[in-house]
Amino acid sequence: MQRKSNFRDVFYVSDGTAITSETLGHAILAQFPIETRQMTLPFVESVDRALNVQKQINRIYEETGVKPLVFYSVVLPEVKAIIEDCSANLYDVLNALVEPLKHDLDMEPMPQLQRSHSISKDAASYQDRIAAIEYTLAHDDGVSLNNLEQADIILLGVSRCGKTPTSLYLAMQFGIRAVNYPFIAEDMTSLKLPQAIEPFRYKTYGLTIDTGRLVAIRNGRYANSDYASLQQCESELNKVESMFRREAIPYLNTTSLSVEEISTRLLDMSGLKRRMC
Amino acid sequence: MQRKSNFRDVFYVSDGTAITSETLGHAILAQFPIETRQMTLPFVESVDRALNVQKQINRIYEETGVKPLVFYSVVLPEVKAIIEDCSANLYDVLNALVEPLKHDLDMEPMPQLQRSHSISKDAASYQDRIAAIEYTLAHDDGVSLNNLEQADIILLGVSRCGKTPTSLYLAMQFGIRAVNYPFIAEDMTSLKLPQAIEPFRYKTYGLTIDTGRLVAIRNGRYANSDYASLQQCESELNKVESMFRREAIPYLNTTSLSVEEISTRLLDMSGLKRRMC
Repeated sequence: MQRKSNFRDVFYVSDGTAITSETLGHAILAQFPIETRQMTLPFVESVDRALNVQKQINRIYEETGVKPLVFYSVVLPEVKAIIEDCSANLYDVLNALVEPLKHDLDMEPMPQLQRSHSISKDAASYQDRIAAIEYTLAHDDGVSLNNLEQADIILLGVSRCGKTPTSLYLAMQFGIRAVNYPFIAEDMTSLKLPQAIEPFRYKTYGLTIDTGRLVAIRNGRYANSDYASLQQCESELNKVESMFRREAIPYLNTTSLSVEEISTRLLDMSGLKRRMC
Repeated sequence: MQRKSNFRDVFYVSDGTAITSETLGHAILAQFPIETRQMTLPFVESVDRALNVQKQINRIYEETGVKPLVFYSVVLPEVKAIIEDCSANLYDVLNALVEPLKHDLDMEPMPQLQRSHSISKDAASYQDRIAAIEYTLAHDDGVSLNNLEQADIILLGVSRCGKTPTSLYLAMQFGIRAVNYPFIAEDMTSLKLPQAIEPFRYKTYGLTIDTGRLVAIRNGRYANSDYASLQQCESELNKVESMFRREAIPYLNTTSLSVEEISTRLLDMSGLKRRMC
């Protein structure tokens, strides 16, 4: 198999969801000038499955002559032994920090299978999270402006500036009850904060976006429509941003930010606590 | 301040979202028998803010005499220097693995601010993700059974067994287009796969849940209703599970699983690829 010299196969292997290995692996690999093909193998919980993973990894080494990079987080000792016996460059994502922590805490670790947000582990926080998702779904896209006193945050902005994905991420990841309300073309003649939102203006935040980006996104949805025209997008953005400034609503330009970044920035701006652990 | 000897203050500090530090820190701390108070400080991007963080960390040390644990991921050198000068036990979450990787790859890392799912970095994958979220919202809770040919996965189950949060997580995290369809009381007399879903049965998966857990969840929503009664929950679960078996629909019991675990298990069962990197 012909390969570029900076090309590497990467595996994320875990006896859990592999989310920790993936998150850390992505962050580390982003620092190296390599191209990768990545494969995630969660729930490697049996010797059989571990042997299959080993075979898969070893085959790549045999075919390419280049050791794959394996980021792994495995608690089960019999599985771990098999993974550590692969023909690969091996990175134990937890162990690298468990060792110094063991020393600093002067305690032995008690390795256990990870249970993120598990129902059995913490029913109350699980319920909070589900309730936040429900509340956020019920208040998506201006569908309802009832029960705003229960909202943690209210997002405002033109259509397609990132309100819905951000609201859902806030609910899902942080247990935040998010309302989002779109200003549409019909609102533009005399733009103001909706009356139902007025009493809760202290928890409103604006999202905005660059005109060119908005035109591209809207064209992806309704090509060549008035809705997607440069003129319409520019006019809506100008009016909404000037309203944000007039009403002293803090706002954020989402153009070059990921949903994770927008969400974390909003938490930061609002002082809201992350509910999940 | 009076503290238990196994109590520690923990900080996650980053010049990005701090998601990597948090994810890894949670996984590592779960292995030690300690109680913690945790604080996440994202976007520490300026010397001023870094000095504030340092003050906050040092104050805890002064008040308690116990060094806080600080998990950090900082690229900006001037910020990093200030964090590393705190009175704390310090854990650089990336560096521990960057060093061995540097050696194995025989390459110098090029540290850069992390941009997860960034629009500017990868507009196509960002659009895919947003499209998946939209599709999933439009097909939540049986609202629509149109365009099922575009679905990646179709989830079936009784009301309140975890379909909606799982669908949204699959869309948000992995760019998966998920449909979810609830079987309600009225379906129970002659339970079968809805006709619209029949042609796509190869991508259907069932979710189920223990009776006691379902009773508790439904009571949280409509206390003392028929809907939440033991008899109703038991009967619905029996009928739906027996339908899953009769129709050979693979299914999963969600009782002791987190949304992350349910989602990852479904990916695993279905062979669907994670789209996001």
